[in-house]
Amino acid sequence: MSSGSLELIFAPRSIAVIGVSGEPGRSTAAQRFARALISFGFKGNLYPVHPSGGEIMGIKIYRSLRDIPGNIDLVVSIIPAQLTIGLVADCAAKGTKAIHLFTSGYSEIEDVKGKNLEAELLAAAKDSGIRIIGPNCMGIYNPKATLTFAADYPDQKGFPAESGQLGLISQSGGNASSSIREATTRGIFFSKVISYGNGADLNESDFLEYLMNDNDTKVIGIYAEGVKEGRRFLNVISEAAARKPVIVYKGGITEAGARACASHTSAIAGSATIWRYLLRQVGSIQVHNMHELVDVAVILLKMPKFKGKRVAIIGSGGGTGVSAADDCNNAGLVVPLLNNRIRKRLVKICGSEAGSIYRNPVDLSAFAPKETLMKAMICVINSNEIDLALIHFQFDAWAIGYRSEMIMPYTETIIELSKIISKPLVIVLHGQTTKIAKQMASTMEEKLVETGLPVFTSFSQAATAISRVLDYRGCSRA
Amino acid sequence: MSSGSLELIFAPRSIAVIGVSGEPGRSTAAQRFARALISFGFKGNLYPVHPSGGEIMGIKIYRSLRDIPGNIDLVVSIIPAQLTIGLVADCAAKGTKAIHLFTSGYSEIEDVKGKNLEAELLAAAKDSGIRIIGPNCMGIYNPKATLTFAADYPDQKGFPAESGQLGLISQSGGNASSSIREATTRGIFFSKVISYGNGADLNESDFLEYLMNDNDTKVIGIYAEGVKEGRRFLNVISEAAARKPVIVYKGGITEAGARACASHTSAIAGSATIWRYLLRQVGSIQVHNMHELVDVAVILLKMPKFKGKRVAIIGSGGGTGVSAADDCNNAGLVVPLLNNRIRKRLVKICGSEAGSIYRNPVDLSAFAPKETLMKAMICVINSNEIDLALIHFQFDAWAIGYRSEMIMPYTETIIELSKIISKPLVIVLHGQTTKIAKQMASTMEEKLVETGLPVFTSFSQAATAISRVLDYRGCSRA
Repeated sequence: MSSGSLELIFAPRSIAVIGVSGEPGRSTAAQRFARALISFGFKGNLYPVHPSGGEIMGIKIYRSLRDIPGNIDLVVSIIPAQLTIGLVADCAAKGTKAIHLFTSGYSEIEDVKGKNLEAELLAAAKDSGIRIIGPNCMGIYNPKATLTFAADYPDQKGFPAESGQLGLISQSGGNASSSIREATTRGIFFSKVISYGNGADLNESDFLEYLMNDNDTKVIGIYAEGVKEGRRFLNVISEAAARKPVIVYKGGITEAGARACASHTSAIAGSATIWRYLLRQVGSIQVHNMHELVDVAVILLKMPKFKGKRVAIIGSGGGTGVSAADDCNNAGLVVPLLNNRIRKRLVKICGSEAGSIYRNPVDLSAFAPKETLMKAMICVINSNEIDLALIHFQFDAWAIGYRSEMIMPYTETIIELSKIISKPLVIVLHGQTTKIAKQMASTMEEKLVETGLPVFTSFSQAATAISRVLDYRGCSRA
Repeated sequence: MSSGSLELIFAPRSIAVIGVSGEPGRSTAAQRFARALISFGFKGNLYPVHPSGGEIMGIKIYRSLRDIPGNIDLVVSIIPAQLTIGLVADCAAKGTKAIHLFTSGYSEIEDVKGKNLEAELLAAAKDSGIRIIGPNCMGIYNPKATLTFAADYPDQKGFPAESGQLGLISQSGGNASSSIREATTRGIFFSKVISYGNGADLNESDFLEYLMNDNDTKVIGIYAEGVKEGRRFLNVISEAAARKPVIVYKGGITEAGARACASHTSAIAGSATIWRYLLRQVGSIQVHNMHELVDVAVILLKMPKFKGKRVAIIGSGGGTGVSAADDCNNAGLVVPLLNNRIRKRLVKICGSEAGSIYRNPVDLSAFAPKETLMKAMICVINSNEIDLALIHFQFDAWAIGYRSEMIMPYTETIIELSKIISKPLVIVLHGQTTKIAKQMASTMEEKLVETGLPVFTSFSQAATAISRVLDYRGCSRA
């Protein structure tokens, strides 16, 4: 199997999961993995394997890999590391060409035995023409192929069955899982997600090459703690970035972070300055955590192309407007003063300036009727001084009762507006710290995301993502 | 009334709220203000005033200020700006010495009429020895004096009746309100909060002087868009900072932010560099938004003094550990490698390194039994290489069912730990983006805050606040 053709790994017709005990009432990693596949509706043949046999969720557990009738495209190993050499021999005997080593305890641990074991395993796999994902990773989520690693309860759907346009390569399984859940909440779905851990055999370059050529993937995200083949990676990422946007979160940019990388995936982290320089040079978009990676994906995938960086800030609250303006300016956006004509029109629409601000940021009364809000927003956004609009709502600033009174008309106004306005809207739902604010914000977010709008929880987060996309698209910052 | 003796403003025995219509089924600002005072249980005499008379929540509405029998310590004006000159005359006639001008439409609006009106009003008030709060502000929240501006529904409690140790001076009423709600959620209560808007008469220096001398106030927070009397402010803040911690968020540090300040409270914002330099020189703690202000207050008021900056990061998730280590390092904290002895002890407590990390960040299985978690945490935190511990939980990384299984034992472990460990614990509940994660995080936060623990929602937020307090206390960053 060449690295350019990883089809059996991404869309296996049959999977054996090794280490799945049939013992009821337990919750081992292997059981969780198998249950996730079953409840996700894996459409290929699934063979759980455990020396004790038995069954899980009505599916027979084989006592050994060799007992399984028929071919196995992918073997998932969730057994102790020292037993995996034997597993490679079994795979060779069955003609299986791909092993996903969920198993940990290799080069990432301090004990030198782990490093030796990884080397030994790699050599054995290579001898038999077997490719390895991992070790020490969650593997592949590919909704189109009904493949998942969401170790969800059997009665829960886990990751969405819906496919999308973001392809994610992540050394960390936890980061992959949390980002899938965050992105889904924000209306972003995935083409493929790869958690590849130590990347002992197949590494970031292999997966990047794959996603670069994958037509379902429109945007690529990478979480890397280190790279295995530096020169190759630079070549591949340059080519990938020339074809589609590549967002990179390089973890371990400090001494402590780099040490954490070594003990997490045995990665050699490298200097922050070099990474910053190289990632920019190859045309990728650098971010500094997984949330920012999702943020940029939201702008790239949910927002129509915008012509420039002149932003209108619209919402309720003067202090909030000051923060918003500072955050936008700091991120490199421009918050132009609205011209006199527009300000006068706003006075006509909303009434006197007292208690409102019409200069940009625009501070509109949260108690204004829907029609007034709508007219005022259209008036501001249609200004030829404006390229895009940030519309915001501060939850904690308002008493509970008033918030619930205001939220529905405000949400409906934004949704209607998004249907008739040609310029991009970005929504910021901020001040979500109290329990009730979080609940209300979730409800509002659901409705806005359903409409296809990009939703953020802070101005700096939104402005930073917008600015990164503008930079990437080559808009001047001047 | 001298600025050093603002007692009538902070603890009025009687209040007249001007502009409160008795018309039912409406929700004007004046009605909301009066209802908030009534439902908060204001223990002095409350006199709503409106030319139409009537009543509100069973309380008589007077037709004019002059009709009210007895003295009025504080008049709250919620009527159009052009009517307030007449109100000053009424106050002078009644012998009232303080007016809180909730009313907007003065120097903060573009129309020059507003500026003239503010000057005229000030002159008239000065002639009659009347002090002004505002205009264009929410006024005072002083739970001890049953004074509030939380415009809450009558059946809702609004701001807490409980008093605390944080005194907050805020030019923005919205920022004050949202911070009160955020702080309360995090276990921080207030001595006094002042929203003072344009600060035409009583300004930041007056209120700072008051809080500096107020024994109930242990920590002072300031949100300022500008300062009215530069030299005086520097003198007062120097003296205040010498007595108690003063946290300052200076809004409007960019061109657009400064313009927003001018149209919000007519403030002249000043240069970011000068502010940074001055705020450091006077010994205050500078922050960059209201959340950061609350963060620092949480560390100052909820965390025992700590000796140094060597932090243990404990939780589940390798990728999360990398981010945590980077964030701590970037904020100026140290994440020391745990010594061999401790790492060996952790292997004994938790088992093999495979799937765990014992070097710091410490990655413990979230599925570990309570006793194991407890033993491991004690072993790490008691290390003499560690000054404080960041214990974290990532919600979005886990499937719903497993999260609810893990959360209770994890929460209980932290609470028990906090009772027996002598070093400070800081809790980070992160990855709260899905609806269910937000709900679970709120529940966990409530329990931890009840125990008195400082809780944050991101590593960088926690590490930044800790680092600021260390800097403030003069700990070297080396």
